[in-house]
Amino acid sequence: MRAVELGAYEGGADALAVVDKPVPKPGAGQVLVRIHASPVNPSDLSFLRGAYGIKKNLPVVPGFEASGEVVASGGGVWANHIVGRRVACAAPAGGDGTWAEYMVAEAALCIPLLKSTDIEQASMMIVNPFTAWALLGIAQKARARAVVQTAAASALGRMVIRLAAARGVEVVNVVRRREQVELLKSEGAREVLDSSEEDFDARLKEVCKRAGATVAFDAVAGNLTGRVLHATPTGSECVVYGGLSMEGCLLDPRSLIFERKRVRGFWLSDWMRTSGMMQKFSASRSVQKLLKDELRTEIRARLPLEQAAEGVRLYEREMTGGKVLLMPGVRD
Amino acid sequence: MRAVELGAYEGGADALAVVDKPVPKPGAGQVLVRIHASPVNPSDLSFLRGAYGIKKNLPVVPGFEASGEVVASGGGVWANHIVGRRVACAAPAGGDGTWAEYMVAEAALCIPLLKSTDIEQASMMIVNPFTAWALLGIAQKARARAVVQTAAASALGRMVIRLAAARGVEVVNVVRRREQVELLKSEGAREVLDSSEEDFDARLKEVCKRAGATVAFDAVAGNLTGRVLHATPTGSECVVYGGLSMEGCLLDPRSLIFERKRVRGFWLSDWMRTSGMMQKFSASRSVQKLLKDELRTEIRARLPLEQAAEGVRLYEREMTGGKVLLMPGVRD
Repeated sequence: MRAVELGAYEGGADALAVVDKPVPKPGAGQVLVRIHASPVNPSDLSFLRGAYGIKKNLPVVPGFEASGEVVASGGGVWANHIVGRRVACAAPAGGDGTWAEYMVAEAALCIPLLKSTDIEQASMMIVNPFTAWALLGIAQKARARAVVQTAAASALGRMVIRLAAARGVEVVNVVRRREQVELLKSEGAREVLDSSEEDFDARLKEVCKRAGATVAFDAVAGNLTGRVLHATPTGSECVVYGGLSMEGCLLDPRSLIFERKRVRGFWLSDWMRTSGMMQKFSASRSVQKLLKDELRTEIRARLPLEQAAEGVRLYEREMTGGKVLLMPGVRD
Repeated sequence: MRAVELGAYEGGADALAVVDKPVPKPGAGQVLVRIHASPVNPSDLSFLRGAYGIKKNLPVVPGFEASGEVVASGGGVWANHIVGRRVACAAPAGGDGTWAEYMVAEAALCIPLLKSTDIEQASMMIVNPFTAWALLGIAQKARARAVVQTAAASALGRMVIRLAAARGVEVVNVVRRREQVELLKSEGAREVLDSSEEDFDARLKEVCKRAGATVAFDAVAGNLTGRVLHATPTGSECVVYGGLSMEGCLLDPRSLIFERKRVRGFWLSDWMRTSGMMQKFSASRSVQKLLKDELRTEIRARLPLEQAAEGVRLYEREMTGGKVLLMPGVRD
């Protein structure tokens, strides 16, 4: 089969090559998935630079999520049950990922698709839609009337906006450029603040107070984590789920000490591991029903595996213009 | 009466003056305390610079804790009950503090002393001993086998060491100078690491893992918060209770995201407000019994109010050499 391989963590997109490899064989509890499509996500960019939470042994096939068809089972009730089904699937923790013609997946990490689910949208169903779904769950568990989020113009940020609207939770959105303010406002977002504006901190504080934004979602890190935490009301919590700025989170200790504010992280893999089967099943049905609308992802390009490096560079240059899909079935 | 007054937040010790003021009158639920002794604490240094969590209207009498005798009541069952008693007391949230001959205190913030309690030690009983007691409570509630703490050579840090030893909780101590390593080792501390040493981060990680130090107490902030958080095992929590470095806490977002680590603050005033009467009563009895030994504070100087500015400067220069007490009854 054809597969994309990463040869070195230092090289990023330059260290990607397309190679021929044997089609892998699923073991017990595993299935072989013929990949239809797989996106380039921010977590892939981190992984390619060796800056992600896990490092795999090299060379390795990158890619964390995909859609496709289960074409063989290695044994086990659930694995056998889903043969022939269309699925969304996540890469195994240790081995080769989704940027290939075939991948061996843990059957437990495959989500059968509903008839109505679009297979391209399904390839982007786990990382962003499930994260948006889980983040909103954290906010609702904390009984937050509103949330504040950074990187609000990202695909994930825009899902949070639409999902929150459907649930009656207000969102205070933080972006870093004027065009992004206009983009989100044109999509119906009410509060959008540009962190490059001079009065940003004072306005953010005022808006968070008015809205009651006691939970923050941060994907940027750097000093923005602390600025957002500072702006939230006493007792608020900041959930960090990304580090797009590539900087450390900088927090005023007084926010923690005198205002009872807390900071924690969110990692979808933990959520997947610690959520029960029923919770995941229910989440996967809800998420699929929303893929047409609230959780829909814009697609910018459909590229063959041979153009993986170009796809990564395209996405890296401009992350808000829609997703880049790698599709083994497309020919260049 | 004679009292120390702060005239401006910019001046620090230079903005202190000793003035004559009328003796204040207690209202309902309040008492008048004749002050015996009051310490200079790190929180006072922050307050004098305007960097503390609360700012009072100026001019104001600084000082957050003291010991003394209740000489009058403004009415109320508890206030009337403690007239004539020796007490440890905390300054009211808004008004004049403890660096004076007399202070009006909320009766609820006065702790009657046991016969055996030394009145000088009692003047330093609230801020440090209660904090040490409450921090250890957080660690024990989190079922931590061990804790790691920064600023371990401070008066509070040394109380944590002694209190933890009595409770069978191991302490991994972080200091920033070689002399402090020797000081703490001579007092029986087992693990003391100097953050200025080159292999500090690697050794800290190894020791935290070996000991199972899943709760951290940080009084320094700056990049030390993140280095300590990084060194603790997956799932650990860092409790920030001070910002001695005067810098923001710098954290690697990957510690939060991929290692389920959390950061929160601790402020004794919150603990006092949210703990029930019984909990505080029980804490105050335990703390007083330990004032002779585990929670004993070293005293470096006993100064009259007239030397408050010198006392502040003395303490600011070298914070690990024992406390400076301001004592209205001492004459220079």
